[in-house]
Amino acid sequence: MAVPRSHPRRESLLVREKLVRGLERGLVAREGLMAHGRGEAFDYLLGEATGRHARKALRAAAAVLLLAERPIISVNGNVAALCAAEAVRLARAARARMEVNTFYGDGGRRARIAAELERRGARGVLGANPESRGRLAGTSRSRGAADKEGILAADVVVVPLEDGDRTSALKAAGKQVITFDLNPLSRTARTADITIVDNITRGMDELARLCREYSARGAPALSRIVRNFDNGANLAACIREMTAGLRRQWIA
Amino acid sequence: MAVPRSHPRRESLLVREKLVRGLERGLVAREGLMAHGRGEAFDYLLGEATGRHARKALRAAAAVLLLAERPIISVNGNVAALCAAEAVRLARAARARMEVNTFYGDGGRRARIAAELERRGARGVLGANPESRGRLAGTSRSRGAADKEGILAADVVVVPLEDGDRTSALKAAGKQVITFDLNPLSRTARTADITIVDNITRGMDELARLCREYSARGAPALSRIVRNFDNGANLAACIREMTAGLRRQWIA
Repeated sequence: MAVPRSHPRRESLLVREKLVRGLERGLVAREGLMAHGRGEAFDYLLGEATGRHARKALRAAAAVLLLAERPIISVNGNVAALCAAEAVRLARAARARMEVNTFYGDGGRRARIAAELERRGARGVLGANPESRGRLAGTSRSRGAADKEGILAADVVVVPLEDGDRTSALKAAGKQVITFDLNPLSRTARTADITIVDNITRGMDELARLCREYSARGAPALSRIVRNFDNGANLAACIREMTAGLRRQWIA
Repeated sequence: MAVPRSHPRRESLLVREKLVRGLERGLVAREGLMAHGRGEAFDYLLGEATGRHARKALRAAAAVLLLAERPIISVNGNVAALCAAEAVRLARAARARMEVNTFYGDGGRRARIAAELERRGARGVLGANPESRGRLAGTSRSRGAADKEGILAADVVVVPLEDGDRTSALKAAGKQVITFDLNPLSRTARTADITIVDNITRGMDELARLCREYSARGAPALSRIVRNFDNGANLAACIREMTAGLRRQWIA
């Protein structure tokens, strides 16, 4: 259905339509729609803008990606539906490979997500080939799938919108974990090394841009950015931003 | 898929499954899954419990319902999937009729929701019969449908999880509006006369119980409860509860 140009929630409604189309196209899981709604609520508290603390996390994430030996960008159904092109640009800017990861049942969803990424210019997308499929230690059979050449071999993984158990398993496997999570209280947000509390529809492209901007910097300068970032302190600051947002929007 | 008994988010996962089954059964709209996610996030900030301020709103709502001449309980897809039996109990306790209201496209959804309510013991459910269908002034053709014998003739309407435009149209039509909305900042929350900031899976049955408890009280006692309730002040208190929840859960 057409969203009127004048609608006060137009942007948000258009994003919802993208996800519904993603469900129809077999990219998105039904549970992904609920997860999106949770993110929307937290984004609303942020004023639907990339805040100062998200920017700090984005800069640290770009530095970690450029310092990585084998970085991977993990893509699930919601990421594919909302920002496949941006994720492909990020992979290019960070010289990272891409891997499809689905949390909820498969039924061909992995292959469709990989095809969507390739349609947007990705090459050699991992995660859809059962022959190189391994498993993350400490996860259940159905939910721990990871590619032997991808996540299992990576040193740095970008896992936007990830499940808490999987994030813990990635950390236990010695990976550096970068995530996008609008809920600063989630287990993923607290477990990751760098948590970008931002909407992927805004933050993914910004991360790609920062990777390009920083690409000429040397390892010492990049390491300095990483050392100066404290994920716990940054999450606490995001929570303060949200409580202020709750009050501000009530008065508005 | 089976949710393990030990899972820390078991209750929440079981509710999600109910909604997904509701989608499969043609009761729930896909947009309803996203709306549920938004509610989950706010409920999380409330500590997933019915707070003091929700209880205050529930008591005022029970009093308003018992004082009403022609109360109506409006039921959409999410309500039907999550608490159809509770909504039927509320209608019985409040001597209210029930009306099906869907915000997103129809395609038989109204009839299926009515059938679900009747399966749970409701009689004479309105809103599924095109012959008595009218329209709320000030709403678009597709989204303003309301039954001439139901909402259009009612003095008090309970509209859980309602859209902001429709809530405004109900107020403009002179109705007293009671809503359940976990987002205290939403237009519906701010427009309704009584906003119960609580999860319908907890609050609906509690409202029915309060209607039974108050049923022997006279009009003066009930009116006193209503007069002592201030929706704006109560919403502000809910927001304070949520900001405290954000901080508490961060420390936990």
